Amino acid sequence: MTLRFAILGAGRIGQAHARAISATPGAAFVALYEPLEAAATSMQQRYGSDLRSTEEIVQAEDIDAVAICTPTDTHADLIELFARAGKAIFCEKPVDLSSERVKQALKTVEETGATLMVGFNRRFDPDFMGVKAAIDAGSIGDVEMVTITSRDPGPPPVSYIKVSGGIFRDMTIHDFDIARWLLGEEPVTVMAQGSNLVDPDIAAAGDYDSVNVILKTASGKQAVITNSRRASYGYDQRIEVHGSKGMAAAANRHESTVEVAGEGGYARPPLLNFFMDRYAVAYANEIAAFVAAVTDGKPTPTTGLDGLKALELADAALESAKTGRAVTLG
Amino acid sequence: MTLRFAILGAGRIGQAHARAISATPGAAFVALYEPLEAAATSMQQRYGSDLRSTEEIVQAEDIDAVAICTPTDTHADLIELFARAGKAIFCEKPVDLSSERVKQALKTVEETGATLMVGFNRRFDPDFMGVKAAIDAGSIGDVEMVTITSRDPGPPPVSYIKVSGGIFRDMTIHDFDIARWLLGEEPVTVMAQGSNLVDPDIAAAGDYDSVNVILKTASGKQAVITNSRRASYGYDQRIEVHGSKGMAAAANRHESTVEVAGEGGYARPPLLNFFMDRYAVAYANEIAAFVAAVTDGKPTPTTGLDGLKALELADAALESAKTGRAVTLG
Amino acid sequence: MTLRFAILGAGRIGQAHARAISATPGAAFVALYEPLEAAATSMQQRYGSDLRSTEEIVQAEDIDAVAICTPTDTHADLIELFARAGKAIFCEKPVDLSSERVKQALKTVEETGATLMVGFNRRFDPDFMGVKAAIDAGSIGDVEMVTITSRDPGPPPVSYIKVSGGIFRDMTIHDFDIARWLLGEEPVTVMAQGSNLVDPDIAAAGDYDSVNVILKTASGKQAVITNSRRASYGYDQRIEVHGSKGMAAAANRHESTVEVAGEGGYARPPLLNFFMDRYAVAYANEIAAFVAAVTDGKPTPTTGLDGLKALELADAALESAKTGRAVTLG
Amino acid sequence: MTLRFAILGAGRIGQAHARAISATPGAAFVALYEPLEAAATSMQQRYGSDLRSTEEIVQAEDIDAVAICTPTDTHADLIELFARAGKAIFCEKPVDLSSERVKQALKTVEETGATLMVGFNRRFDPDFMGVKAAIDAGSIGDVEMVTITSRDPGPPPVSYIKVSGGIFRDMTIHDFDIARWLLGEEPVTVMAQGSNLVDPDIAAAGDYDSVNVILKTASGKQAVITNSRRASYGYDQRIEVHGSKGMAAAANRHESTVEVAGEGGYARPPLLNFFMDRYAVAYANEIAAFVAAVTDGKPTPTTGLDGLKALELADAALESAKTGRAVTLG
Repeated sequence: MTLRFAILGAGRIGQAHARAISATPGAAFVALYEPLEAAATSMQQRYGSDLRSTEEIVQAEDIDAVAICTPTDTHADLIELFARAGKAIFCEKPVDLSSERVKQALKTVEETGATLMVGFNRRFDPDFMGVKAAIDAGSIGDVEMVTITSRDPGPPPVSYIKVSGGIFRDMTIHDFDIARWLLGEEPVTVMAQGSNLVDPDIAAAGDYDSVNVILKTASGKQAVITNSRRASYGYDQRIEVHGSKGMAAAANRHESTVEVAGEGGYARPPLLNFFMDRYAVAYANEIAAFVAAVTDGKPTPTTGLDGLKALELADAALESAKTGRAVTLG
Repeated sequence: MTLRFAILGAGRIGQAHARAISATPGAAFVALYEPLEAAATSMQQRYGSDLRSTEEIVQAEDIDAVAICTPTDTHADLIELFARAGKAIFCEKPVDLSSERVKQALKTVEETGATLMVGFNRRFDPDFMGVKAAIDAGSIGDVEMVTITSRDPGPPPVSYIKVSGGIFRDMTIHDFDIARWLLGEEPVTVMAQGSNLVDPDIAAAGDYDSVNVILKTASGKQAVITNSRRASYGYDQRIEVHGSKGMAAAANRHESTVEVAGEGGYARPPLLNFFMDRYAVAYANEIAAFVAAVTDGKPTPTTGLDGLKALELADAALESAKTGRAVTLG
Repeated sequence: MTLRFAILGAGRIGQAHARAISATPGAAFVALYEPLEAAATSMQQRYGSDLRSTEEIVQAEDIDAVAICTPTDTHADLIELFARAGKAIFCEKPVDLSSERVKQALKTVEETGATLMVGFNRRFDPDFMGVKAAIDAGSIGDVEMVTITSRDPGPPPVSYIKVSGGIFRDMTIHDFDIARWLLGEEPVTVMAQGSNLVDPDIAAAGDYDSVNVILKTASGKQAVITNSRRASYGYDQRIEVHGSKGMAAAANRHESTVEVAGEGGYARPPLLNFFMDRYAVAYANEIAAFVAAVTDGKPTPTTGLDGLKALELADAALESAKTGRAVTLG
Repeated sequence: MTLRFAILGAGRIGQAHARAISATPGAAFVALYEPLEAAATSMQQRYGSDLRSTEEIVQAEDIDAVAICTPTDTHADLIELFARAGKAIFCEKPVDLSSERVKQALKTVEETGATLMVGFNRRFDPDFMGVKAAIDAGSIGDVEMVTITSRDPGPPPVSYIKVSGGIFRDMTIHDFDIARWLLGEEPVTVMAQGSNLVDPDIAAAGDYDSVNVILKTASGKQAVITNSRRASYGYDQRIEVHGSKGMAAAANRHESTVEVAGEGGYARPPLLNFFMDRYAVAYANEIAAFVAAVTDGKPTPTTGLDGLKALELADAALESAKTGRAVTLG
């Protein structure tokens, strides 16, 4: 059996999923929705997929699943539309910037019994999976402290920042998801601190560019998240989990393993700079996991609820950064 | 000229300084104050120093400087005593557990014009000095985020915990000092979170064993400190500074550089486990710096004020952990 | 313009090139020659390519280039056949086990003006390319000593060993090519030492399983090659170049960047174990380089002469190991 | 009991041993022989040791052991002198540049029953000891290939080169000893290649500056040694042992663990540059091992025979480099 996909959105992330779907055995990229003609044409030429309207995709009998890669403000509507149409849904994070809207959409998903997986790609990174596997194997005992360092090579355009929902909902949301996944227990308290150090235009847009967050669960496990919108040395993506019996850590990926030594010392190349390169395998694994879950009728490894939980942590972090108070979650 | 020392206290740290003073050109270990006979005798045999009372040391014309290595609750009194006696003073951290008492003692130091250096040994670690040198050389641009990971191999006895002043004043105080040193700007806001994950007896003693702290300066620079009272893999001591143009980090020291590979993978030895081994060079550098400053009539690299500032951050962190609120400093 | 390929041979390496050709823009995998039905069918189903005889490929107007991935003893004949047919030729190493036969085949290539690239995939590995780039950029001054460590995860079947031409011609040949490439000057003296430490059946088959080689150029530059047919910790592939001003080295690739610490120390996973995984990017780069050279009418980055030179070094190494004498080349 | 030492020679290595002896419990530095007045006075002032003639040391009842740190051409005579005087002897390598002279001296040692330890300091380096311990623990199975990389930061003065016995006897001799120690079996065949790449004056003095050696034991174990008289990035000292079940390696020691990242990549400091710093702990361990062996009446960890065997390998390597033939030992 082959899972036949429609992809909605031919932007950067839509292209990544097109590549992944085409390369995944048991998956086929059949149709595309994309209002911008140039983007649509380029994707059609490369993959030979049909161009269709969302309504045609809803109706199509040759489409089993959709990958929603459109702008964030369309996600919830499209989830509801395709949940009702009985399609399996893979949706890019976040589901929505409003947790109320997310809850509403998840209600529809629940009522229709639809399959919804939210695209937290990092859970599928081989290095991060190695850390999770070490925890699950008991190699480090009970998890006590998770440390996540995530720094982008450079900030997005301020125009994007303005509609992004802010750094906690746009960038830290990945780290909230990873923290929940590694802690193995829901955080109940959030403390956060935000600064503007990278670009005054980000401050002017009402957002932070440098943040630190402390999460704490009911049993006292903690997670620390460090974010910056800029790192001169590449895309800095590290996790470390400290437990009662040890520690597991995933290091960064450099451009190569080459080291050059000379009078001044030893030099290694910068980190992989582009998220598509850094997480290339993660994107492929993520789609493969979705295809496997839908095909086998099993739960997807991430769900709409994961999207909601991460967003609630983001909301709480923003509140904490603004008020200087620890925010307790429901 | 030789700086002639009396050491007060022949405990673990007194012995460390005896070793350092004996090995430092331009310094001599002349006299010892130690009420416990066994400890005193052992030190005398090793170094040939006199055993004297504090009063005799105050009066002694052959003593230029004292190294105060007695229990914390005697530090402030001894500082005042020797400040009035005109001796140069090296005092182990903390000056006192009460910031009021510290202020009082520093007032005496100021009035007498005495020299007082507080023993923040980590500033003299060659790896940490390398990070500071990179900052001072402009290699990473403006400092934005300092990350300090400090985990002890195992917790001290609960009897010690009870008189320690708590983890923030006893253990994190080193990290507060390092954070101030690396930030190059005073923190004005402190957020902290504490947990009990290592030993329930520590909780019963009213202390935390696992904490995270976020510091923030007026200009928005931040520092994150992660502490645990236990790390199965050794004494975990790392710092990392992220700046506008790059990052500088000091890694851990392992027992050796040996790596053994086999079917199961690659294995390296644990970290140096004992703080005396890990910071052996730092202790030597620290005394050498004190000797050099006193001999040359220059300011010591750390002062009583550094002791006070670190203690104030510790007090603020404790309050934040207890109240869930960011604490703003004077 | 698209370079249309016929692949000869659907074995492991033929499949690798099929994957690479299909993924390379400007290249198409049009036809396959493969006498074994099962292998042929599997490849056809995956890539939709025609199944043809060598004669049909010679005649075909829709074939511009061939990738020769058949057993070694057919390479020279096929090179001559397709050189005369005017096809661009990519041939797996070695061209032949006899340097006389290689010379003969290269003569035909020269006379027909055909393009021939020999598949020394390692030159296209990003890590090794990084070392070469450092040399070419002058970062290490004049090259003085090249050190190549190459150990296979485990020995091939003895049946293969028997027809392989021996470890120098089968395994070390890659390292001879890399040594020539990095030395930038032809080796003129070869010293080699061989042992049997891995498997007595290899000795019974008349081959070594553990060898060391020293190459020396006319100006005195040296290269050391260390080979073993077995490494418990994975596929060990390292190069290091020492020069007048420094050193450049490419390290191994582990299964992941994960490190797990505990009471016993720090553990990292083994190396990538399978040559197809280790050199996945190299195989893709290699085909892309061939396609680019043929399409642009430029020289290929490796040639038949490279194949001959590496083979001559292998012959000399075998003679040196047998006789205990340094062997001087032409 | 305290082992009372006379040190012969107050040069760089004599000073290193003075430091080690003074710091070793159970050892005392009592007397010094040094013909140069300035050197003698400086050492006396620092350690308070007597200045004596060799004859006085021979006669002295308060001297149990001698540390011979004089020029190489005096070693054999002094060994014989003090062996007859019944002193325990620690002698710097090499015993002599002529293996005949070494044999003669060892005969005297044997006849007198004297204790003689030859100063192969590297066996006492904690990192190298870790590799040996991994072998002895069976962690890597049977030893198959030893790889030793040893590069000095810069060449000694040509005046020293001229009397040094050449690179194999002066520099590689350490590596021959380490190879024997790690192989656990005597090498029987030596192949070597020498070049002049560092300094033409070394060639003019009749010596090589860049060499590679392959050793092979009767059972086929091999060792490869790579030497250069110059490395811009510091004192390069690495060993690696490949066995049937794995590999053990000791990495270099850098000036610090600091890594600085920026746009151009990651930078680490050069290696420790000075052999006294790199092997500081080894020198201390070496003396402690000598003291322990003499005090406990046990064999010393290295002996005169080790000195002879290493020298014979050096002689063989020189012959092989000159003749281009593998040289077989006794």
